[in-house]
Amino acid sequence: MFKNKLKKKILPVAVLSTVAFGTLLGTLNNDVKAEEVVQNNAEIKNVIFLIGDGMGVSYTSAYRYLKDNPSTKEVEQTEFDKYLVGQQKTYPEDPHQNVTDSAAAATAMSAGVKTYNAAIGVDNDGSSVKTVLEAAKEKGKSTGLVATSEITHATPASYGAHDVSRKNMNAIADDYYDEMINGGHKIDVMLGGGVSNFVRQDRDLTKEFQKDGYSYVTNKDEMLKSDNTRMLGLFAQGGMPKMLDREASMPSLKDMTETALNKLSQNKNGFFLMVEGSQIDWAGHDNDIVAAMSEMEDFETAFKAAVEFAKKDKHTLVIATADHSTGGYSIGARGDYNWFGAPIAAAKRTPDFMAEQIAKSADVEKTLKDYIDLQLTPQEIDSVKKAAASKNVTTIDNAIETIFDLRSVTGWTTGGHTGEDVNVYAYGPGSNLFAGNIDNTDQAKHIFDILKNGK
Amino acid sequence: MFKNKLKKKILPVAVLSTVAFGTLLGTLNNDVKAEEVVQNNAEIKNVIFLIGDGMGVSYTSAYRYLKDNPSTKEVEQTEFDKYLVGQQKTYPEDPHQNVTDSAAAATAMSAGVKTYNAAIGVDNDGSSVKTVLEAAKEKGKSTGLVATSEITHATPASYGAHDVSRKNMNAIADDYYDEMINGGHKIDVMLGGGVSNFVRQDRDLTKEFQKDGYSYVTNKDEMLKSDNTRMLGLFAQGGMPKMLDREASMPSLKDMTETALNKLSQNKNGFFLMVEGSQIDWAGHDNDIVAAMSEMEDFETAFKAAVEFAKKDKHTLVIATADHSTGGYSIGARGDYNWFGAPIAAAKRTPDFMAEQIAKSADVEKTLKDYIDLQLTPQEIDSVKKAAASKNVTTIDNAIETIFDLRSVTGWTTGGHTGEDVNVYAYGPGSNLFAGNIDNTDQAKHIFDILKNGK
Repeated sequence: MFKNKLKKKILPVAVLSTVAFGTLLGTLNNDVKAEEVVQNNAEIKNVIFLIGDGMGVSYTSAYRYLKDNPSTKEVEQTEFDKYLVGQQKTYPEDPHQNVTDSAAAATAMSAGVKTYNAAIGVDNDGSSVKTVLEAAKEKGKSTGLVATSEITHATPASYGAHDVSRKNMNAIADDYYDEMINGGHKIDVMLGGGVSNFVRQDRDLTKEFQKDGYSYVTNKDEMLKSDNTRMLGLFAQGGMPKMLDREASMPSLKDMTETALNKLSQNKNGFFLMVEGSQIDWAGHDNDIVAAMSEMEDFETAFKAAVEFAKKDKHTLVIATADHSTGGYSIGARGDYNWFGAPIAAAKRTPDFMAEQIAKSADVEKTLKDYIDLQLTPQEIDSVKKAAASKNVTTIDNAIETIFDLRSVTGWTTGGHTGEDVNVYAYGPGSNLFAGNIDNTDQAKHIFDILKNGK
Repeated sequence: MFKNKLKKKILPVAVLSTVAFGTLLGTLNNDVKAEEVVQNNAEIKNVIFLIGDGMGVSYTSAYRYLKDNPSTKEVEQTEFDKYLVGQQKTYPEDPHQNVTDSAAAATAMSAGVKTYNAAIGVDNDGSSVKTVLEAAKEKGKSTGLVATSEITHATPASYGAHDVSRKNMNAIADDYYDEMINGGHKIDVMLGGGVSNFVRQDRDLTKEFQKDGYSYVTNKDEMLKSDNTRMLGLFAQGGMPKMLDREASMPSLKDMTETALNKLSQNKNGFFLMVEGSQIDWAGHDNDIVAAMSEMEDFETAFKAAVEFAKKDKHTLVIATADHSTGGYSIGARGDYNWFGAPIAAAKRTPDFMAEQIAKSADVEKTLKDYIDLQLTPQEIDSVKKAAASKNVTTIDNAIETIFDLRSVTGWTTGGHTGEDVNVYAYGPGSNLFAGNIDNTDQAKHIFDILKNGK
């Protein structure tokens, strides 16, 4: 009910009849506790680790209010809300920066090691550090990486590769193929963007993987049709389009997650899967609230699929968290005590998409009308027309974003990252290990411990 | 270790020796769980509810990094971190605003009722709603309110009064005296600011309370010396000075909290105490990171005192949370991947304090030098000199705050509140009730339930 309408209601009145505070909790919580203990003590065969890149607290809260059903009195919980267990600290160990980037944060979560910004599975000395994906593969488990960025981008790379710099995405793709564990490739399923890092003048890794028994797929149909348990799926030259801009031939993050789960779960030894909602962060860097909420939905849907798998399986631990927050995004700004999801929900495409059309000489008013289900003011339309004169995509994009910022009452402080703690969500056996205020390195440490103490 | 220095370290390497994920958790967590269950099932006699007004996630995270011991490898946890159990939603039910103010949020937490911004213990119809403080008093418990704002300000008022508007602080003070429960005053201990709302032309409530057996105190010594279990302590005409600016004769939030606990705990039926770190929010409205961190320290120290009481007592539930966040404050801003606590720790007084001196014609350079333990640049000093020419305190204050914003890499988006979820910390029996993602109304509902089901 996050909207502007006064409602009447019947008040809950506590009836007080006795004289001392009591032990309601004794009866009320023991059942819950008992259930939790049983759930938490089940054998853990599988771990699904989901990272909403840049998904700070403002994003998860705003997404709830955006998705709220206005016809009900209360604001509905998101899939994330149901499984909140705590938060994690995100600071890196970098000589020049104390707010983390995605590489240092992902290496902390994959290997349990604080390192410098840009480090991919290496420590501050540049030495490779073992990741939980590699440890799982050593135990005979299947492994997977799913992302909407290039599958060689900082976050997935920090689970499956080792490089002194996140920029070396070709070398990271090489690592995925060249670094063997027990004589085999270490990642069974890779789904995301980044064709250009695999199909190059010097190497065509898609052919090399196919030669070694992998299926290589480039659209949703091919992905769904193949029953090969080893798969490389690359659905864009670079990062995939945002959910709002995606064509039907392209899989969603949920589609990719379910495909990965289907394949990985065929291994009786279990699996480790990392899933990244990569572009919440990219939207945050761009200070684009429309794209940010698009990617939140893509990520939430994938998280829900993971939890549903775990609920049936009963031996799967699901963790969802963020690596950091991005943009200094705030719900409310400029003195206004409001934030509105409706203007954001009215966008049928991202501002980036619209700006590109306009920069290619599409009519401003028609483009805005086609893709935004709002009655824009003449002033709003003029602001984009003025920007369009520049023919500069970024200028036009910023003008469109400003309309959404003002309409939704969204604020930003930076085009970079911010250092506040991010939420941790967990479901399944072992989920209690991740409760409270933990460090991002604890994510890897707990998963290593689970592996180490396995039967 | 939140600083700019590369450090070497020995890497934690997980030794993997077996073949399947296992049940470490079975052994590792049962002990913890058992302890938690015992702790959570103890009889609850007392509830201490602490509210850090405006204390969003960025504030609790930044405070940790500010207080970090740079000589240790890891960042130390704050007192809050140790007891993080989840978060709460803060949205109000207001016809014009969907980001809450302190009154609506406090009424949600005190009475379990969503209401409009400015509502003090009343619902959307303007009808009074029973608060947990009142319910506790009805059960024969002692009750207390402690704050660094006027003790009649929105947050404490929502526990002990009923008014259609937070602005009516005189009427709220009247409520504290006039509204009786079981023939007696409903609040046994009131400690904070706000003499002007009690000592007025039409009434002198300090005399009325004294006539009815209360001690009235106005400084720390008097407060500590009195052994009366009923006390009205008012230490400033309006809000108390911020911790950084406070003189030794004035109690800290911790001093007031300990005094209240000492008095309230003499009732064998137990007590309910609300403690507010009122001015984290005021600093946020002012976009003053120095004052915000001053008030975070004041609040953390009071929270620690509450937890220490509960640890000894074993029948005390302690909750700490915030009503909302303020200022759209971000750790890092303007593209910089850093946030520095040291420049903030270098301030010996708040920018407000310095600005007032300068507006009264104190020398700019000397004032800055006296109260800021940093080598300021000529440009920084000049920026304040320029502002000083205006003789306007706010202009001078803003100029000084800008120095700290730029030095610490702090960002802001608003002079108002923001709508993201805020953290919930809990210790003691019943603390598990407050875990996960809850609504601010759940705070009251759980406490009412505890009362209702008491033995």
